Amino acid sequence: MTPVHSTEARCREFGWEIFERARAAQPRVWHRGWWQQCLLDMSLAYDALRVQLFRFIDVLPVLQSDDAIARHLKEYLDPDRHPMPALGRLALSYAHPKSLHALLIAAMTRRGARMMAGSFIAGNNAEEAIRFVHGLRRRRMAFTLDVLGEFTSSHAQADHYQQTYLDLMNELCPAARTWGFDSLIDRGATGPMPRVNISIKLTALSPSFDAIDPPSAVRSVCHRLRPILRRARDLGAFINVDMESYAYHDLTLELFTRVLEEDEFRGMTDVGIVIQAYLQSAEAHFDRLLSWIRRRGCGIAVRLVKGAYWDMETAVAAQNYSTPPVWLHKWQSDVCYERIARRMLENRRWLRPAFATHNVRTMASVMAAAEQLGADATEYEIQLLNGMGEPLKDALADMGRCVRVYTPYGDQVSGMGYLIRRLLENTANDSFLRQSYRLRDADRLLKDPAEVRPPSRAPRALRFQDTQEDAPMFEFKNEPLTSFTNAVNRERYAAALTHVHGQFGRNYPLVINGETVPTDDWIESVNPSRPTETVGRAAAATTADADHAVAAACRAFRTWRLVDARRRADYLHKAADELRRRRFEFAALITYEAGKPWREADADVSEAIDYLDYYAFHAEHLIHRPRRRDLPGEDNYLVYEPKGVCVVLATWTFPLALLANMTSAALAAGNTVIMKPASATPVVAAWFMDVFRGLDLPPGVLNYLPGDGKTMGRHLVRSTEVHLVAITGSREVGVEVMRAAPDAPASQHHIKKVIAEMGGKNAVIIDDDADIDEAAAGVLKSAFGFSGQKCTACSRAVVLADVYDRFCERLVDAAGAMTIGPADEPATVIGPLIDGSAIRRMAKFLEIARQEGRILLERTDLPAEGYFAGPVIVADVDPSSVIAQEEILGPILCVLHARDFDHALEIANGTRYALTGGLYSRSPAHIERAKRDFLVGNLYVNRKITGSRVDVEPFGGIKMSGDGAKAGGPEYLHGFCNARTITEHTLRHGLASSRELQATA
Amino acid sequence: MTPVHSTEARCREFGWEIFERARAAQPRVWHRGWWQQCLLDMSLAYDALRVQLFRFIDVLPVLQSDDAIARHLKEYLDPDRHPMPALGRLALSYAHPKSLHALLIAAMTRRGARMMAGSFIAGNNAEEAIRFVHGLRRRRMAFTLDVLGEFTSSHAQADHYQQTYLDLMNELCPAARTWGFDSLIDRGATGPMPRVNISIKLTALSPSFDAIDPPSAVRSVCHRLRPILRRARDLGAFINVDMESYAYHDLTLELFTRVLEEDEFRGMTDVGIVIQAYLQSAEAHFDRLLSWIRRRGCGIAVRLVKGAYWDMETAVAAQNYSTPPVWLHKWQSDVCYERIARRMLENRRWLRPAFATHNVRTMASVMAAAEQLGADATEYEIQLLNGMGEPLKDALADMGRCVRVYTPYGDQVSGMGYLIRRLLENTANDSFLRQSYRLRDADRLLKDPAEVRPPSRAPRALRFQDTQEDAPMFEFKNEPLTSFTNAVNRERYAAALTHVHGQFGRNYPLVINGETVPTDDWIESVNPSRPTETVGRAAAATTADADHAVAAACRAFRTWRLVDARRRADYLHKAADELRRRRFEFAALITYEAGKPWREADADVSEAIDYLDYYAFHAEHLIHRPRRRDLPGEDNYLVYEPKGVCVVLATWTFPLALLANMTSAALAAGNTVIMKPASATPVVAAWFMDVFRGLDLPPGVLNYLPGDGKTMGRHLVRSTEVHLVAITGSREVGVEVMRAAPDAPASQHHIKKVIAEMGGKNAVIIDDDADIDEAAAGVLKSAFGFSGQKCTACSRAVVLADVYDRFCERLVDAAGAMTIGPADEPATVIGPLIDGSAIRRMAKFLEIARQEGRILLERTDLPAEGYFAGPVIVADVDPSSVIAQEEILGPILCVLHARDFDHALEIANGTRYALTGGLYSRSPAHIERAKRDFLVGNLYVNRKITGSRVDVEPFGGIKMSGDGAKAGGPEYLHGFCNARTITEHTLRHGLASSRELQATA
Repeated sequence: MTPVHSTEARCREFGWEIFERARAAQPRVWHRGWWQQCLLDMSLAYDALRVQLFRFIDVLPVLQSDDAIARHLKEYLDPDRHPMPALGRLALSYAHPKSLHALLIAAMTRRGARMMAGSFIAGNNAEEAIRFVHGLRRRRMAFTLDVLGEFTSSHAQADHYQQTYLDLMNELCPAARTWGFDSLIDRGATGPMPRVNISIKLTALSPSFDAIDPPSAVRSVCHRLRPILRRARDLGAFINVDMESYAYHDLTLELFTRVLEEDEFRGMTDVGIVIQAYLQSAEAHFDRLLSWIRRRGCGIAVRLVKGAYWDMETAVAAQNYSTPPVWLHKWQSDVCYERIARRMLENRRWLRPAFATHNVRTMASVMAAAEQLGADATEYEIQLLNGMGEPLKDALADMGRCVRVYTPYGDQVSGMGYLIRRLLENTANDSFLRQSYRLRDADRLLKDPAEVRPPSRAPRALRFQDTQEDAPMFEFKNEPLTSFTNAVNRERYAAALTHVHGQFGRNYPLVINGETVPTDDWIESVNPSRPTETVGRAAAATTADADHAVAAACRAFRTWRLVDARRRADYLHKAADELRRRRFEFAALITYEAGKPWREADADVSEAIDYLDYYAFHAEHLIHRPRRRDLPGEDNYLVYEPKGVCVVLATWTFPLALLANMTSAALAAGNTVIMKPASATPVVAAWFMDVFRGLDLPPGVLNYLPGDGKTMGRHLVRSTEVHLVAITGSREVGVEVMRAAPDAPASQHHIKKVIAEMGGKNAVIIDDDADIDEAAAGVLKSAFGFSGQKCTACSRAVVLADVYDRFCERLVDAAGAMTIGPADEPATVIGPLIDGSAIRRMAKFLEIARQEGRILLERTDLPAEGYFAGPVIVADVDPSSVIAQEEILGPILCVLHARDFDHALEIANGTRYALTGGLYSRSPAHIERAKRDFLVGNLYVNRKITGSRVDVEPFGGIKMSGDGAKAGGPEYLHGFCNARTITEHTLRHGLASSRELQATA
Repeated sequence: MTPVHSTEARCREFGWEIFERARAAQPRVWHRGWWQQCLLDMSLAYDALRVQLFRFIDVLPVLQSDDAIARHLKEYLDPDRHPMPALGRLALSYAHPKSLHALLIAAMTRRGARMMAGSFIAGNNAEEAIRFVHGLRRRRMAFTLDVLGEFTSSHAQADHYQQTYLDLMNELCPAARTWGFDSLIDRGATGPMPRVNISIKLTALSPSFDAIDPPSAVRSVCHRLRPILRRARDLGAFINVDMESYAYHDLTLELFTRVLEEDEFRGMTDVGIVIQAYLQSAEAHFDRLLSWIRRRGCGIAVRLVKGAYWDMETAVAAQNYSTPPVWLHKWQSDVCYERIARRMLENRRWLRPAFATHNVRTMASVMAAAEQLGADATEYEIQLLNGMGEPLKDALADMGRCVRVYTPYGDQVSGMGYLIRRLLENTANDSFLRQSYRLRDADRLLKDPAEVRPPSRAPRALRFQDTQEDAPMFEFKNEPLTSFTNAVNRERYAAALTHVHGQFGRNYPLVINGETVPTDDWIESVNPSRPTETVGRAAAATTADADHAVAAACRAFRTWRLVDARRRADYLHKAADELRRRRFEFAALITYEAGKPWREADADVSEAIDYLDYYAFHAEHLIHRPRRRDLPGEDNYLVYEPKGVCVVLATWTFPLALLANMTSAALAAGNTVIMKPASATPVVAAWFMDVFRGLDLPPGVLNYLPGDGKTMGRHLVRSTEVHLVAITGSREVGVEVMRAAPDAPASQHHIKKVIAEMGGKNAVIIDDDADIDEAAAGVLKSAFGFSGQKCTACSRAVVLADVYDRFCERLVDAAGAMTIGPADEPATVIGPLIDGSAIRRMAKFLEIARQEGRILLERTDLPAEGYFAGPVIVADVDPSSVIAQEEILGPILCVLHARDFDHALEIANGTRYALTGGLYSRSPAHIERAKRDFLVGNLYVNRKITGSRVDVEPFGGIKMSGDGAKAGGPEYLHGFCNARTITEHTLRHGLASSRELQATA
């Protein structure tokens, strides 16, 4: 066996050869033209500018006029705001976007962008594609065509995507037969290879491509994949399935293997799949794939890539506080790649290896390994991307290697994601492409990646910007959402559903002063997906029970207020731990009792955990370490203390999170609490109560008091011994509580504090340069998630004139594809409403909608059983109409037409509510404008408007949506506290303590 | 002339001689006994313990029982809380304060303390004093006796002090005639000296010893000083006037010179005065004194000291943000001392120099200078304190120098201030006394102080404890109060009064939208000290005016909200500067319009300046630099924004400060404001308005709208376009506004925010170990400052049984001595009430008081003109009676009897109000208890309960005294803001900015 060091030496030899040949080929440099050169020069020199530039390129294809281009160019590349080389500065230094100069620049921009796109993309019709392929074959290179387009949100889009492939094969395959045989690129290890090679992204084949429910995704995707495979088989084309982001990895692999195990495809060999070496699990994936191939018994192709979603994977993981699935260092991916490459070559009897890379070292190591393992040039291929590393391609072809060029095909709008990824790669700091082919760099660049690893240091886990003023006050980490990509989690959820179902029908008595108290009346809580199932029965408290609870809470307060803030925090951290431990159980219960689909229920639990931890940390900070202003001779501090007895009135929209928010803030601050949960979800609250009972919280500190709001609830709120009412509910109830608060009979020694979070009538503005696909998807998630039964839900889409029709179309298409079903079924996106009265309420609003607008969509394909109401989209709604002004709290979405951006803001701000709001736009000026003038408690730009995270996005509305308290924010706890200033004069007869004297001496 | 270096050499020789002799004398070390040794050992080793120990010694004399001693000992010297040497730990490690062990320790403590006091104090009657003097004369030392006692608060105390001196001379002088003549100590430069030498503190001779009005202080002090001088002259005794803290320096000097210029004392030479070398102005004082002596034409004695109030002077200056009058470094005082000593010796024909010091270097330098200037031992004397530096005294006497021992006389309670100062000196780190007389230290200790100065560094200006969590958010400094010790300031105030008086009678129209608007009705504002004087006439707005003002504020809001927070802050800083510039004018106006005496009016202006600056800084911090939580791919920030139109309803109790508080917070946050000032003080508000008009604030941003509260005010508050009402006023009005706030007609798109500061019924608890003099003084200042017309005023004194009678007596004595008069007279402590209705209100409450309690004091010595009501003290009031429950807002103080500390807390907490509260106690446990359980917004321990300072003591009440907002605190501005969370998804097609990527890579 050849020793490793000689393979390494061989690798260097190959590397040097590639270098030298590429250098020779370099005059044929790929990019030409002023714009491109300028762009690359600038982006290499100024990092901040690079981002602005690429963002501009992202929006460019949708800009309809030179005016629009000039305006955006100005907004993105304002020379006053971004450092810029002289050339760019000159080009952009014009006064008015409509000046001649500006329009000239705009025209050049458009032309430059078209050129740039053209250098990556093969064309937008078969004719262009064929012409392109001819060019490649002349350079003795093979190709694989990738139809641009990714994640799709409607069946129409998926159909279109499928049809494009079918058409492409129909056109190309007959043409391919006319091409002369080239032994370098048309011959594989076992004979001729298909000349037409297609790459395909499975996420584009179905709007329900979701790992949470593999069987239904498989059903839906295979339905469109099979005809493609058949056509390929019939016409002799090759189909490669691409890999996308990690969330789709397992599902993609499963789909690929499933369909190829089907009888009609069992013998198909002209297919391939991808291994992404930047995944930490890459080698395991390879093992799994290899054993599947062996089991299946006939070979396929495998393309080894490093992976193109590194930025996104790390960002998504950071946002969810989870570990990224990718290697954190470039060299780790490189090492992993080389290891798998070798194993692929070793197993080439089972698979045809394709090595996708632009890294000379990687290519050379593959070639060395191949040589060492006796694989000749027909037994593997090297793949590169169109428009990138052209000298390398020529060098490899000259060296007699089979080079295949990965070439996107389609229009620029749908290809923008692809284009941006390519630009990023070309300009990234550690990209091989950014290096020139100077020979003096060759040795450094050809080093074994395992040896270039930097001195070991822990990867930075920095989450926030590291500036002093932004530094968090305390160590708090959000609880990650469950990844349903992971089969184990899916199984645990299913098991939890079974477990919880087994506990249906139990009775839940009141809990007052640590004792359970049964009552005469009981509240029946049913499963809204199947109302014949009783989730449980909760005791219905009387006003006498309320009095007992207040008395108990009052008694308990005397000692609870004195408990060390750290000990109180400890209870909350323990409760958070318990929820963490039982998170699937709680989520399952929420799925049953509130009718929340899996992901929504899971998020409810994470948020509850966050509140418990957050306020615990915060209380420790606020209460245990008071702010001091000690002067020589005088100690001054500001202490925060509990107020007394707190009544928590929760709603069912977030049966656990909202309850946990108000309750944990109240407890952390040292108040005692009476929880009155919503009558629709008393069982979730009872379980939450049980968590605290399990922690031996002192009796009376937390009491559980479900019951009728109009009688018992109102009585509770008016009790003279209650100091604080925290309420999440309708505006009417909130205002009633607020109005009652200052009333104080003579026996009451305080004014009640009210912390109220009320309704919303939330709008999302869709600007005329928005990414319409993302906007439609975001609006639908915001409007129909949990059937629109969130105070934060999007109820109004305010759409700019230019994109109104297109957006409506996209919206209706996508909404039509959303899965409606019982909440406990994993694929369900839209579950039931909470109860029968909600159904009647929806019917009423639907009737109004019919009168006030044009119904675009009314889904009636609903389950027979359960409180289901289909999503409704109503367009052309007048901003002042009832349907555009009243809170609906259900799956009805209005679409409103806005003349221009000012008008859109006016409409969006034109209700009494101001909870959440959103904007989809790619105009920096409009985004700034909205930040300033779209006056809502939580504004979201270019993302959905529900799902705020504790600490990161403090939550709460203004105007009549709330009193301004921001849950999960730095001041929320203050509302549950009294602040007292304590001043102690410490100078006795001129005697100061030495610490004080130091301060002045 | 002898060159300096030889004087320096001579100084060293003297120094070495003193050292060697003192060393020889050392066996006769002054302190003996276990307790003292233990105390000194411990205090030298543990700095924190030293403070605890001295505080314990401070309270010890008033402890009546062994139980009480044991309890306090345990509380102060808890071995679990303070590091302590093994011996002390053993002594204090007992379980229960009533155990035998504890009582034994208590007894030993009492005995030890008596011994310790005995080693400093000459005795408590003439017999003891004479015995003591005999002892000194045997050691060939002279004496000066100082009757213990300082600042006095009643005429009775002053009389007693005077009488003690007279008695002492009556007893001592005849005895002195029997003493043999000692040439060392009885002979001065010009012949025999008086053998009886008395030191006297002038502050003890009058309760109105206040520099603010020198003539009346002179009158009052001279009245008691003259008999003492006459008796001394008649009996041949010497009188030295001591110097105390800097606040009394100029007045003391003025008194001394004034009385000695009177015909009957013009020729008196056996008198002396003090120069304090630690004052930066010491040399100037000496110059002034010397020229006075020359002018007067006959000599006196001058004692040069370093100064004993350094801790206090620096602390007081730090608390008031002013420059301390003392040198910041010890060496500076030493240098100053030597320079003045030399000048005294040079001028010995005009004065007999006495050098008070325990510093060997200083003594030696004096002796060397004397020798060089040809002064023999009869021409000067060296003074040392009794009980300190005994070996030095013997050494000096042996060397043939005239040593005089400064010896306090009196009981331990009144001597505690003296004792503590001596202990501090003995144990201070840089004290000469703490050094031993080891010869190897001599050279170092004898160095010229001008040469030992440490390497120059700026004196630390650290004001707060330097720990990260306490660090202020921004650079804010409180505006110092005016020092009326300074004659220039007194003159400026008087001039401002004249100036303002000249502007009486002007008309002040409304200011709406930047325009003045006259009205049909006018509000007449009179001077309550002389109601026939009209301060000015303010327009009375109608409801129509209110509507105009709201409309103007609404319009102005549209642009004002968008103004950069830093620019808004700039307006406020400029307004603060303008108030600073015109502070005397504003204070004078307040004196006239509100009837506030000088100091109170001055504090009103300082507080207003503070609010303007504080909120300006805070808004810059809060609004300009929002809190960020950026994640990779997502920017998150929390912005604070104005709410809209703010109505400010102010009261007349702090006509400027309260208005400035609410107005500047509202403006800083970006709201527009309608000021409705109290009808009693519209002119102060009009002037405040003018300050902003002078700054060109945009029209409509600030509007001035005096008028009737019941009609116009109510209308204003209910306007649908008002977003925010900030009110300081009665509970009734506050609750009415709060109740109206949630009401919102359909046209109103928000719920009004109310920030309310309401009444108080504030209590001060006087514990049985309190310093009764300080407590009485503090309670009176709190109760009768501005005639009790502050929401923060003390209305109830809750006194523990053991000290009830004594406290009442002290209170009544002191209250009887408070000067009542027109507010514009500087000596006035109690001015008029605000108006005629307040007089009627007081009469009503006085009637109730007569029925509900025992009237202890009812001052009827009132000016004939003006709205005057004399202070009333009513004792034995039941806690539930009307007079103990209702807010009075006038000079009526209830005294309530408490069985024990628990009972006192129960009474103090037993009203619906909870604004301020106070405690006078020297029990650490009770102080802790009160901090925990005395539930008021602002609690003050061992100081007056009025006069909170911005930032240092955030201000605001709880229960029914307010909504918990703390003015001048870190969260006040939040109440004037909406918080909005802004989230921007920045990841476009996987494109993150490089900054974001860094965070995870």
